[in-house]
Amino acid sequence: MATLWKSRYAQRNQRMERSIIRELLKFTMQPDIISFAGGLPAPELFPVARCQDAACRLLDEHGAQALQYGPTEGYPPLRRFIAERMARYSIDAKPENVLITSGSQQALDLIGKLLLNAGDRILVEEPTYLGALQAWNSYQAEYVTVPCDDQGVRTDLLEAALRVGPKFMYILPNFQNPGGTTLALERRQTLVRLSNRYGIPIVEDDPYGTLRYEGEHLPPLVALDSDYQTTAGLNGHGYMDGNVIYLGTFSKTLAPGLRLGWVVAPEEVIDQLVIAKQGADLHTSSFDQMLAHEIVQDDFLDEHIRLIRQVYGQRRDVMLAALERYFPEECSWTHPEGGLFLWARTPDWIDTGDLMPEAVAHKVAYVPGFAFYTDSKRGRNTMRLNFSNAQPPRIEKGIQRLGNLLKTKIAARSDQAVLVPA
Amino acid sequence: MATLWKSRYAQRNQRMERSIIRELLKFTMQPDIISFAGGLPAPELFPVARCQDAACRLLDEHGAQALQYGPTEGYPPLRRFIAERMARYSIDAKPENVLITSGSQQALDLIGKLLLNAGDRILVEEPTYLGALQAWNSYQAEYVTVPCDDQGVRTDLLEAALRVGPKFMYILPNFQNPGGTTLALERRQTLVRLSNRYGIPIVEDDPYGTLRYEGEHLPPLVALDSDYQTTAGLNGHGYMDGNVIYLGTFSKTLAPGLRLGWVVAPEEVIDQLVIAKQGADLHTSSFDQMLAHEIVQDDFLDEHIRLIRQVYGQRRDVMLAALERYFPEECSWTHPEGGLFLWARTPDWIDTGDLMPEAVAHKVAYVPGFAFYTDSKRGRNTMRLNFSNAQPPRIEKGIQRLGNLLKTKIAARSDQAVLVPA
Repeated sequence: MATLWKSRYAQRNQRMERSIIRELLKFTMQPDIISFAGGLPAPELFPVARCQDAACRLLDEHGAQALQYGPTEGYPPLRRFIAERMARYSIDAKPENVLITSGSQQALDLIGKLLLNAGDRILVEEPTYLGALQAWNSYQAEYVTVPCDDQGVRTDLLEAALRVGPKFMYILPNFQNPGGTTLALERRQTLVRLSNRYGIPIVEDDPYGTLRYEGEHLPPLVALDSDYQTTAGLNGHGYMDGNVIYLGTFSKTLAPGLRLGWVVAPEEVIDQLVIAKQGADLHTSSFDQMLAHEIVQDDFLDEHIRLIRQVYGQRRDVMLAALERYFPEECSWTHPEGGLFLWARTPDWIDTGDLMPEAVAHKVAYVPGFAFYTDSKRGRNTMRLNFSNAQPPRIEKGIQRLGNLLKTKIAARSDQAVLVPA
Repeated sequence: MATLWKSRYAQRNQRMERSIIRELLKFTMQPDIISFAGGLPAPELFPVARCQDAACRLLDEHGAQALQYGPTEGYPPLRRFIAERMARYSIDAKPENVLITSGSQQALDLIGKLLLNAGDRILVEEPTYLGALQAWNSYQAEYVTVPCDDQGVRTDLLEAALRVGPKFMYILPNFQNPGGTTLALERRQTLVRLSNRYGIPIVEDDPYGTLRYEGEHLPPLVALDSDYQTTAGLNGHGYMDGNVIYLGTFSKTLAPGLRLGWVVAPEEVIDQLVIAKQGADLHTSSFDQMLAHEIVQDDFLDEHIRLIRQVYGQRRDVMLAALERYFPEECSWTHPEGGLFLWARTPDWIDTGDLMPEAVAHKVAYVPGFAFYTDSKRGRNTMRLNFSNAQPPRIEKGIQRLGNLLKTKIAARSDQAVLVPA
């Protein structure tokens, strides 16, 4: 007898499918495959010893609290820590403006729960973070896309998309996933101006902002929005009263296994998100929140971020040099100023999705770029390459394998062109 | 300027409001208030030292894995542990039938995400677990209710409710929250029979099942469903192919702060829930999952459950004796065979919601029963009392305070009746 369940599934967006990245990860776990597919931090940088000390101290001093239920909003000292930390990025948040989430991914889900009715449109960059599409597909969202170039999302094309009436815009300004690009300052200003003019708020996702390897830090949209409203005389209720929800995470700076992210938003929005979170998981692990708070004390987080920057910056350089050396000249790629990813383009006639099994056979993996498009027929000649996880010799070797495969493909086509002239 | 957000909230069930229990908890955190309101385990029983050893060992041996991203389905050894453990309750699950969730609460949310369209009806016991209503209200669920008595849900009233066509039934068979009642065996069998006859599946929520202080363990619905299908020759695909999704948790047996629950379901349903969970939070904390797995080794969980049973059983007895001693004779209450809660009734004319501020002024707190009804005009003369959290002398004192308050109310009304005869 078939189960009764299958006939009872809710209507969902067709695109609510198992994440291609996560499925790929399963195939690429074998140690002989060099995988650029995941978005995994370098495990050898995890602060294991410090985490151990922190866990021991935490359980000695606050064991019962760490194992007990806690408030939905989050562990108060961690909310304070985050609020204070936001100040250095010109984000003037109080602890009441901060909600701790079970990773940034949960923030995306809660935003969907709070804002989306079936059929609502979201303005997204093209390409954009796969996990956001996955979170919102389950609320039957539709999308309006605006393409990106090397300076980030094309704000010259934004007004036409805003006139379609999206519920909000979803923007990754720093070292975008998957593109690796950074949104230029003037474009940030344009975005904020248009957000205010059209009355369309912004969800600003910033998982990588602190991981910059070159160039100057640019102000976040949430801060620019505040400046804009103050200058325009719109902001009557102090800072945190704007049009931007900002998302941060400890996943890239501390440890993704702890599943700790946060939302910074107007208090009234936080209150609504808290209600949504109560129904979703009551609260994020007390133990993990208190552990993270213990770990980051005494400026450890800054110190640790410096180390990550140095290591990832070097790995980025190794990957860029290897691409230059081993990739066919018919390919191009972005030059990310930070983050975890770069984005490569092959000739139009190569389909990186179809190429994947061959790549895996050559013991190398990437994410086919179409996964980051709302229409999977697009981006077929692109790929996302992660440079944070593998160590330099493996990065070099993996890019060589991939470059050789691409060169073979291109050579085979040239031969064919010679044999069978059009 | 008001934010743009408010005007953009999604349509939601009006009942999606902040949990009354969690709001109450804030008021009852002062140490001089004896609170029977929460559902908190006794913190002095948390295995803090064992947790500390486990954390140290875990970080020594598998530090990088504990801090890294992990599979959405859950940490494989923990899935195996749970599958094996289920066998002793006649639930014949493979690891592939187990999904680890961020507490049982997340399982409720994921079930909503998977199954509910706006307006779908769910058959629930009346009263029922508040958090389930909260999870499903965000999907705009409607409810069909079936009342409970001392034997659990009234299965003699079930068919009429099933004919309304609910998407599924939500049943807490053991030491129900809030009623404290246990579903009788014949009723379990009737439920399963009617589930199969009407083609309406069951979500079986069993957070307290192992915490029994008297009487015999009764088979879970998921096992009875399997037996029924086998006997009826309906079950062609082996055991885990039935009409019941079973929910378990470590929150009451280990530590709620770790936020670890699980779903046992047909593999095909697990696959769908995994997709929903990917979008919701990628996966549950690797660290917490591995920590729990480390803690429960060498039969520690059984040993620890024996301790909890002994302590909570004693607290239940203390509360029952105190009720007998201090509550007015006009009140009645359930006699739970396990779990964390009992359920008390006052005379009809007392509104326990209105009484709450007076109770807090008398330094005692409970949850007004209406919170567990889909219609908050019902259950106005009931209250849920938790007996797991406070220590015996405080239980006695708190029940005395509450009893005195109720007696004062009843006496005042009798005086009035004498002074102003109807």
